[in-house]
Amino acid sequence: MPRFFVPRVELGENFLVLTGENAAHARVLRLKNGDAVTVCDGEGEEWHCVVSDVAPGQVSLVVQEHTAAKSEAAVFCSVYMAFAKADKFEHVIQKATELGAAELVAFPSARCVSRPDERSLAKKLERWQKIAASAAEQSGRGRIPQVLALPSYEAALQRAAQAELAVCFYENEEQRTFRAAIESAPFRTAALLTGPEGGLERSEVEQAQRVGLQICTLGSRILRCETAPLCALSALMYAAGEF
Amino acid sequence: MPRFFVPRVELGENFLVLTGENAAHARVLRLKNGDAVTVCDGEGEEWHCVVSDVAPGQVSLVVQEHTAAKSEAAVFCSVYMAFAKADKFEHVIQKATELGAAELVAFPSARCVSRPDERSLAKKLERWQKIAASAAEQSGRGRIPQVLALPSYEAALQRAAQAELAVCFYENEEQRTFRAAIESAPFRTAALLTGPEGGLERSEVEQAQRVGLQICTLGSRILRCETAPLCALSALMYAAGEF
Repeated sequence: MPRFFVPRVELGENFLVLTGENAAHARVLRLKNGDAVTVCDGEGEEWHCVVSDVAPGQVSLVVQEHTAAKSEAAVFCSVYMAFAKADKFEHVIQKATELGAAELVAFPSARCVSRPDERSLAKKLERWQKIAASAAEQSGRGRIPQVLALPSYEAALQRAAQAELAVCFYENEEQRTFRAAIESAPFRTAALLTGPEGGLERSEVEQAQRVGLQICTLGSRILRCETAPLCALSALMYAAGEF
Repeated sequence: MPRFFVPRVELGENFLVLTGENAAHARVLRLKNGDAVTVCDGEGEEWHCVVSDVAPGQVSLVVQEHTAAKSEAAVFCSVYMAFAKADKFEHVIQKATELGAAELVAFPSARCVSRPDERSLAKKLERWQKIAASAAEQSGRGRIPQVLALPSYEAALQRAAQAELAVCFYENEEQRTFRAAIESAPFRTAALLTGPEGGLERSEVEQAQRVGLQICTLGSRILRCETAPLCALSALMYAAGEF
């Protein structure tokens, strides 16, 4: 079923109107009176509607049902990934959105080769947020994940540590499994933190541990920096009973 | 530690020699006497060695220890993915190799847009196998996953059904979870089957069920055809106690 994200402030309770890009998209889909569509506020609620009128630049809808989005995970999961080369973070934004992440957070760490300056970062953030919105639409999400960039590794740790389950994955950790962390206590919020191409430095991992993150392995194989967060997120969603 | 794949027939018990591409790669890495390297037969065994001589086109090694590869998963997992557009299968080969898959199997299904002919398939298979070998080397695998292409959907089902855990993922399945399938019985071999861009047809899913595959959901979000197999594989490895 077609899915449109409309800002909360533009949403009524019984009647809705699609305008601008949404109306253009509706036209591409050749929507006509009587067709069923879903409208989301991007914050976890959705409106199941039927098209009542199609005019140039404006599609009118009648609300049939207003519910919490059924496709949102019960766990609020934030994916923290160190700045990576090329389009790796964009790849992770798209896939993590499909997999149910609530937030994507980029940050610098010692071995990051890519370190966008402030100006290019502002542009990138705009682009990243669009990728999240598009992936949310295609995967049927009720929430558009927020994409953030933090100025320092320490800022990332401080923020991640606030989650009820906060994990830093380290390739040299051999003992502590992700399962042990997941099963250690119930949680409603999770933060999964992974390093850049060259990995995190040992001192950075120790710093994460001091701030309160659990240091875990993702198994005995070396995962690329864009594979690790998606592997961890998939496992978390499985463990949380999503599928 | 550098890792080289050498065909079983070229391997001795106490002394090994790297030649050809492996010797060239050793040169790029500037290996010198005394450096530690790992040699794998690509079939699950590895030799921990020390460099004893470096000559043009030939690097001699002394074996210190010969063991089963520590990075191989206990579960033998085959990933079955319908032919997809562009380089999606190549992406899945690389990532699934990192994640521990033992086999990658491509097959046609009703809604496949991409259907390589026999000649282009032979070329593609060669390329696919190289991607698997390269990803195995980088991720520290002891086994190079085999990449196969089957001529029909039915052939894929018949082969997949031989695994102790055989699952077909379907976006319209709402009841049966992957967890229910995983926990229904112990297994040492697994087959995870996913559809092409447009998904599997209902009749194809019914056919899979008749042949003995379990039909499962991967959650309430629609995953792209290249995301689904990696999500399922990550969850399987987690469930099997890999991390």
